[in-house]
Amino acid sequence: MTFSRSLQYETRGATQVIDIHRDVLHAVAESGVRSGICVVHVVGSTASITTTEAEPGLVKHDLKAFFERIAPEGGFYQHEATWDDDNGHAHVRASCVGPSVSLPIVDGRLAVGTWQQVVLIDFDTRPRQRQVIVQVVGER
Amino acid sequence: MTFSRSLQYETRGATQVIDIHRDVLHAVAESGVRSGICVVHVVGSTASITTTEAEPGLVKHDLKAFFERIAPEGGFYQHEATWDDDNGHAHVRASCVGPSVSLPIVDGRLAVGTWQQVVLIDFDTRPRQRQVIVQVVGER
Amino acid sequence: MTFSRSLQYETRGATQVIDIHRDVLHAVAESGVRSGICVVHVVGSTASITTTEAEPGLVKHDLKAFFERIAPEGGFYQHEATWDDDNGHAHVRASCVGPSVSLPIVDGRLAVGTWQQVVLIDFDTRPRQRQVIVQVVGER
Repeated sequence: MTFSRSLQYETRGATQVIDIHRDVLHAVAESGVRSGICVVHVVGSTASITTTEAEPGLVKHDLKAFFERIAPEGGFYQHEATWDDDNGHAHVRASCVGPSVSLPIVDGRLAVGTWQQVVLIDFDTRPRQRQVIVQVVGER
Repeated sequence: MTFSRSLQYETRGATQVIDIHRDVLHAVAESGVRSGICVVHVVGSTASITTTEAEPGLVKHDLKAFFERIAPEGGFYQHEATWDDDNGHAHVRASCVGPSVSLPIVDGRLAVGTWQQVVLIDFDTRPRQRQVIVQVVGER
Repeated sequence: MTFSRSLQYETRGATQVIDIHRDVLHAVAESGVRSGICVVHVVGSTASITTTEAEPGLVKHDLKAFFERIAPEGGFYQHEATWDDDNGHAHVRASCVGPSVSLPIVDGRLAVGTWQQVVLIDFDTRPRQRQVIVQVVGER
């Protein structure tokens, strides 16, 4: 069977890392699926889904510093020159990490570690309303 | 039910970004699946699948510049020294981004944003024929 | 139908790249699934799953050098300052690559290239026992 849950988040951008793990767990429980796959996906091309240990050091500092190193906000982006936009770095960061993560559901539980949470990263340069879809396929 | 479609692309390499979104949408429609998961996967270890806004600035300049920054083509790669090859950078770029993306299918449609397209990135250093597999699992 | 196999690996860390492809193929064969999706996922937030050509140059040198370039072990990480830990670089590397890869199963076989193997990368700074889950959804 399949199950779908749409989640909404008000984000600030600027590589904001948002812990959405509790909402994902809730959706998986709601699905009733005991064995299967859960895809967590963010709609849009300037945000990503991944997992991390959701503690303040990583969430508020280290991930931001990492992405600033590999795709600096102040660099030259043709995307910005063409569209008079300011979020070229957000696009390349999002394409690198990807829009979704796939996780196993085993014995009715998401098979992740104790210090491994599903997070939404919003790389954009302005507040946005983000849609995240939790999609479950499996057996009850 | 499951559905599989194999797509072929003639690529040039050199971090060429190819918009394959229309072909993915076509395969999803052909599957008849109304609710499920779509995995888009490229066969081979010097190419990746991700999503981006498929506009020329990002596709022809910014993504190339980004990958050249994080894994320069002119750097030293043991892969090249061992095999007398020239595509070490292509391998590490492909492993970083990954070979596939997983996307939800909701109400018969791929749940992506208006400016979010599925793209194939070929990092290799020569023209190739690439096989991309669109794999759908779900309910009609 | 769904199928789940849990694999265990003794790892050394330090961006060790471990070829787990044979074990993944074995699990897919054991599942009996002819058409579907295989998710390979590592439990924990300092390791990743991806694909690469599993040859010594890439595995023992190039991937390590790449990750050291984008997230240096000797850099400053707030995670380390807060928790008196030494693996901040391991966390950001793992979040960038992601914890899992999704691959199509077509005609009972994993649809990957001849030189494309599933690998576990352990970015942590000490030996660990890692759990990898091979999760299969599809039709026999």
